[in-house]
This record gives sequence, structure tokens and C-alpha cells, in this order.
Amino acid sequence: MDTAARTPETATDRQGLEVLDTGESMRLLASEPVGRFACVLDGGPLVLPVNHVVDGWTVAFRSTFGAKLVAAAREQTVAFQADGYDAASRTGWSVLLTGTAERVLDDEVIARLEELGLEPWANRVERPHWVRIHPDEISGRRIT
Amino acid sequence: MDTAARTPETATDRQGLEVLDTGESMRLLASEPVGRFACVLDGGPLVLPVNHVVDGWTVAFRSTFGAKLVAAAREQTVAFQADGYDAASRTGWSVLLTGTAERVLDDEVIARLEELGLEPWANRVERPHWVRIHPDEISGRRIT
Repeated sequence: MDTAARTPETATDRQGLEVLDTGESMRLLASEPVGRFACVLDGGPLVLPVNHVVDGWTVAFRSTFGAKLVAAAREQTVAFQADGYDAASRTGWSVLLTGTAERVLDDEVIARLEELGLEPWANRVERPHWVRIHPDEISGRRIT
Repeated sequence: MDTAARTPETATDRQGLEVLDTGESMRLLASEPVGRFACVLDGGPLVLPVNHVVDGWTVAFRSTFGAKLVAAAREQTVAFQADGYDAASRTGWSVLLTGTAERVLDDEVIARLEELGLEPWANRVERPHWVRIHPDEISGRRIT
């Protein structure tokens, strides 16, 4: 990142991390091929990596039957996280989106998602379902 | 990875992903400088990246006051996830450890953790507390 381009008004949180705005957060989230879907199962958190796409302000991914689809069918509160970092410079960013999971059943939305060209790396089983997360909150941080 | 060294009995899960044993999972978890701590807050999942160390079968990281320390003080069920992937070959691995969070108060354990040389990248605030996760379950998968 070109630090000279950063405005002097860059906000930081109470941990001293730079706060990213929602637009930049979604751009970064879209830039990574792998993100992590998190839901609550039996009272504890579950974190599962997926290949995803960003569609407007939502994040979508393909799913087979399992915990992800169950969370979506129940419209649970879930999270989606992605990050990128450079170990050599000890810098990086992280974006966390929290919101409601939805199993996509609308043919028009499915058709649009299909056109985004998502091809999950794990392709030994069919992943016929689409799960989408509608964010209530998007937070992004950068360590510089 | 040297695929020739893999046994022909490699187990796969119902999604067709190679199942890693716990030893290999912990080795991979220790090899990454960044992992993700997940806990449940107000009924929804929270996922926060941290720099961590592996100490035996536990994962530990430094924390300031906040959600991570609260989860540890309450000995909540939490998760820790790390992954590594290569976008060009569309391959990667992911390890998920679920268990109980503990705020480390034992001076002997703290002394041992301090010797592991962890220096969080986000260092603008003090992180005087250690959080440790005692796993109940460790699962690892690889996409080849």
C-alpha cells in the first residue's frame, strides 16, 4: 500500500488498528479466492473455508448438504471472514462480515450467481446449492 | 507436499476431501503465523485473526481486553482455524480446532509461553494476557 496516499484522518480502533470503510472492506473480501464461513453449532463456533463471490453487498458460495446449508435454511446469524497478510513485513488486513444466512431459492438470483464464474476448488462432490449472507455489519481492519 | 510419500489408504470425508491426522493438523497450524479465533457473542459467531503459538496440543495467543479475553475468562467453547492455500494450483489445507478457552493465570505456563517468542504484528497496544485453547476436537482437511 502507498502510505502517502492515506489520508491523515485514517481512523484507528482502540487496538490501534486502521479501520477500513465498508467499500474497501468488500473490495478486499472480493479479492481473495478463499474466505471462511462461521456459524454456531451446538453452542460453539464452526469455521469452514469456502470459495466465494461477492454479489453487491452480499457474499455467496456453493454448498452441498451439511452445516453450512443447515445454517442457511434456518436463516441463522453467521459470519464471513477473509484476510490477507504478508509475513515478511508483518502487515495485513482482515474483514469480518456478520449477518443472516440465506439459502438462495430465487431462480433469478441463482442465474446471476452462476454467471459470476465461481468454481470451488473442492469439486469431488456436487455443490448444487447457493448460500448467501446478507450483512448487518461489515468491519475491516488493517495492520500497517 | 511429496504426493509419492502419501499412503494409498488416505482417508477422505464425504465431501471428497483428504482427512489429515491430528499430528499433521497441529504441525500445519503451527506453521502459519496467523490463525483465526472464533467465539460466540450474542448468539452469533465472531472470527478474529491473531498471531498464535502451539504449545503441546494447545494453541495460545496474546490478548488485550475484549471479546477474546471475555470468552477465555468464561471458559467458553471456542474454535481456532488456520489454513494455507495456493491459488494457482487451487490446492490447500484447513485445520479447525474446537475446545475450551482458558485465560492463562499459571505463572509457570505463562513463563513457558513467553519463551516461545510470539510477537504480535498488531503491537500498538499492550497485550498482557495469554489465552489458551484446549482442544476437544482437531480436524484437518486437504484439497489436492
